Amino acid sequence: MRALLYRHLEPEGRPEPGLSPLNTLIALLILLAVITVIAETEATLTGVHAALFSRLELFFGTVFTLEYLARVHAAGEDPRYRGLVGRLRYMVSIWALIDLVALLPFYFGILGTSNAFFLRLIRLLRLLRLSRLGRFSKAWDALADALHTRMHELMLSVGLALVLLVLSSACIYLVEAEQQPESFGSIPRALWWSIATLTTVGYGDVTPITTIGRIFAGVTAVAGIGLIAMPTGILAAAFSDAFQKRREQEQDHG
Amino acid sequence: MRALLYRHLEPEGRPEPGLSPLNTLIALLILLAVITVIAETEATLTGVHAALFSRLELFFGTVFTLEYLARVHAAGEDPRYRGLVGRLRYMVSIWALIDLVALLPFYFGILGTSNAFFLRLIRLLRLLRLSRLGRFSKAWDALADALHTRMHELMLSVGLALVLLVLSSACIYLVEAEQQPESFGSIPRALWWSIATLTTVGYGDVTPITTIGRIFAGVTAVAGIGLIAMPTGILAAAFSDAFQKRREQEQDHG
Amino acid sequence: MRALLYRHLEPEGRPEPGLSPLNTLIALLILLAVITVIAETEATLTGVHAALFSRLELFFGTVFTLEYLARVHAAGEDPRYRGLVGRLRYMVSIWALIDLVALLPFYFGILGTSNAFFLRLIRLLRLLRLSRLGRFSKAWDALADALHTRMHELMLSVGLALVLLVLSSACIYLVEAEQQPESFGSIPRALWWSIATLTTVGYGDVTPITTIGRIFAGVTAVAGIGLIAMPTGILAAAFSDAFQKRREQEQDHG
Amino acid sequence: MRALLYRHLEPEGRPEPGLSPLNTLIALLILLAVITVIAETEATLTGVHAALFSRLELFFGTVFTLEYLARVHAAGEDPRYRGLVGRLRYMVSIWALIDLVALLPFYFGILGTSNAFFLRLIRLLRLLRLSRLGRFSKAWDALADALHTRMHELMLSVGLALVLLVLSSACIYLVEAEQQPESFGSIPRALWWSIATLTTVGYGDVTPITTIGRIFAGVTAVAGIGLIAMPTGILAAAFSDAFQKRREQEQDHG
Repeated sequence: MRALLYRHLEPEGRPEPGLSPLNTLIALLILLAVITVIAETEATLTGVHAALFSRLELFFGTVFTLEYLARVHAAGEDPRYRGLVGRLRYMVSIWALIDLVALLPFYFGILGTSNAFFLRLIRLLRLLRLSRLGRFSKAWDALADALHTRMHELMLSVGLALVLLVLSSACIYLVEAEQQPESFGSIPRALWWSIATLTTVGYGDVTPITTIGRIFAGVTAVAGIGLIAMPTGILAAAFSDAFQKRREQEQDHG
Repeated sequence: MRALLYRHLEPEGRPEPGLSPLNTLIALLILLAVITVIAETEATLTGVHAALFSRLELFFGTVFTLEYLARVHAAGEDPRYRGLVGRLRYMVSIWALIDLVALLPFYFGILGTSNAFFLRLIRLLRLLRLSRLGRFSKAWDALADALHTRMHELMLSVGLALVLLVLSSACIYLVEAEQQPESFGSIPRALWWSIATLTTVGYGDVTPITTIGRIFAGVTAVAGIGLIAMPTGILAAAFSDAFQKRREQEQDHG
Repeated sequence: MRALLYRHLEPEGRPEPGLSPLNTLIALLILLAVITVIAETEATLTGVHAALFSRLELFFGTVFTLEYLARVHAAGEDPRYRGLVGRLRYMVSIWALIDLVALLPFYFGILGTSNAFFLRLIRLLRLLRLSRLGRFSKAWDALADALHTRMHELMLSVGLALVLLVLSSACIYLVEAEQQPESFGSIPRALWWSIATLTTVGYGDVTPITTIGRIFAGVTAVAGIGLIAMPTGILAAAFSDAFQKRREQEQDHG
Repeated sequence: MRALLYRHLEPEGRPEPGLSPLNTLIALLILLAVITVIAETEATLTGVHAALFSRLELFFGTVFTLEYLARVHAAGEDPRYRGLVGRLRYMVSIWALIDLVALLPFYFGILGTSNAFFLRLIRLLRLLRLSRLGRFSKAWDALADALHTRMHELMLSVGLALVLLVLSSACIYLVEAEQQPESFGSIPRALWWSIATLTTVGYGDVTPITTIGRIFAGVTAVAGIGLIAMPTGILAAAFSDAFQKRREQEQDHG
């Protein structure tokens, strides 16, 4: 019985690749629980369907508690977590703690307070974990490989972006502060406009009105294109490398 | 006669590559019919040119009916669709059904009702189909190849984007809900701002006004750049692979 | 004398690569003339500096007339354009016509009318031509090579974008037409919002207000990212190919 | 003593790769000083924490003066800067001058005037310099290599973007000038809208209202996508090349 649970709950215990049907079901339930948490913050929904939400909460709380207990029980199959001390060691492992933290709001009855939803959103982390084990594990590896190999280049382009952000804010502050003190009266205030322009989001709630300010804005917007082009180019080259490396490894094995 | 129709209407029946002149003409007519449907929704146009639109409708309805009958007739050349039963089998094939569905609004006289235009826009699918047969068939293959090979990586970046979207909405809801309950009063409401920022669309109809909210917004906008850079990088690497594979295949044949 | 002019004016007559000093000077003058045309449309500038602008116009008109005559004279060095008939043949060649058209507004005294500036902006084409001859000729080749090789893929992604544009407009029209007839009352009207969202420009002058409309808008914005990622990926792969081909050619020559 | 200072301050004097602990500390202090300068422009902060800011100013002024003197002293270890004349030669080297200029506002007591903060932001340049010496030096090389090799292609795409910008402004000026003279009454005025659209920033403070103007705007927005895709594609290909070259060099050494 414990061996069976272990094989279905713990991906390491499963001989076939991919997620077990039970873990797929749990992933779906986590997704539903996350959607419930999101919907629950909307007062117009909780007002009308209050009973539904409390019943869903009870359902998810019960299911995830049972899942947690089953995982603790099944962990005994793993030589590292054998016995009572082993179980305690399992319970303080990072993923078991995340499972537990996501359960806390249910037990302390602090549902509905403004921050409890954050503890329950932690379940998103559990989704990420399950995705790493299923069919997406190779995609994760390629992604992590690409990001890791080119980390310095990516950090450098983030650094250059920050320097650009400060310089652009300082320039616009210099020329627009007098005309629009509310929005450009200091460098920290000008940062808001600057980041919206450099990332090409462009809310338009704050825009320069002087001619020289608009010229700076144009230069900033064009620099923003470079800001997008640089990490995209680095990532494209990194993915190209990562995919090629993987192909060569597969050919060596074949 | 039927063989001639088959050769001109069915791309499989044509020895040369590319679209036959008749199919090119049909593609142009479909394009015109789609433009007519689009223009017809504008009341200021239908008011003035009502007669023109009803005549165009009659024209396209007649032409596409004749084309449909000709295709059904010509299908007999194909061993699979020989005889009356074969014709019926042809008529329930996916592309023949699309042809038929796009004709329905014409026959039921429900033109002008608010949803009928959707059935007629289905003709866009027919355009896509014709493009797959003509000079763009290789481009389609390269596109499909690139998307298919890197599907897991692309889905993973969509998944990460969704997690980012939820977290960003939750953060902004936490800090802005009190100040702007209308726009940030719940996570579903905050999603609207969040998606506009993460995709760098930035409508600006809703923007955070607290300092901490603006810092979150800045982080979200920068994360949005990563959100664009990641699929672009994956697609660039995938296209690079797909083009190279194709070149090697051509060299092997040469 | 004519041989000297030919060597300095016609890049084909120049043994060294790159632009001759005279052509570099002409390029600079064209740039200045274009800036003058741009500035001249601004009434607050022409009001104050009217004399300056008319003198600049006289100057550029004279210089470019002399240049035109010199080019016609020098063309005699080229065997194709020898003699009076040859000169006439030169004068109807595409680039000589562009030179002439850009001079017309000066001679007809129609400066200041609302469309004459367009004829004079044609000088921008002359700049493009000069850039093709100078140090950028290799960059032009790489660019043209990349665009040409992947033309079908790029046209296909433009085609998909148009289909996406129509579908997105049709969807938003369906759900928002009643609420905002002015902006979403027909598919052509909805196109304005649709193109601003799909290209991630996001003016924000028109935004959906219904919940279902906002969900469609979110999907459209995400599709817009794909719309940007696809041609970028294709171009990245195409440039990668073009640069590599060029390197291999250079190695073969070396 | 001087040799010790030299080894810790001058990266060339350090046998190990990367930044010395002392230089890492200085980099952190520079970062803090920059943040202080940024915060100091905000009147609501300087009003409340005036004493804190003047103490921070005193602290950074003293520390960076000591650092400057130590660097001048330690420069004697370098054969080029030996003796009094050598020290003077060091003091007029580009990086020593930047160090000095950033100190000036502190000594002239002109803090608080509107432009002095710019001299102090020059410290950002010092950060860039330190980053070139530390773990990011290879990333800098790859970046500079990619930008340098494809400089002509990148400049060409900037040039094409400028031509596009002028043409798009001229078109929108032609069709919208009468309706909105304030925003589109001349080509220079239209440039503001044009650059916001081509870079896909899209503030939305100025948008065309005529149908033909909106069609031009749509074309401009789509051209803007090409404007982003081209440099991104060039950079992606350039990084791909730069990384591959580097890998081959490392394999040759190994």
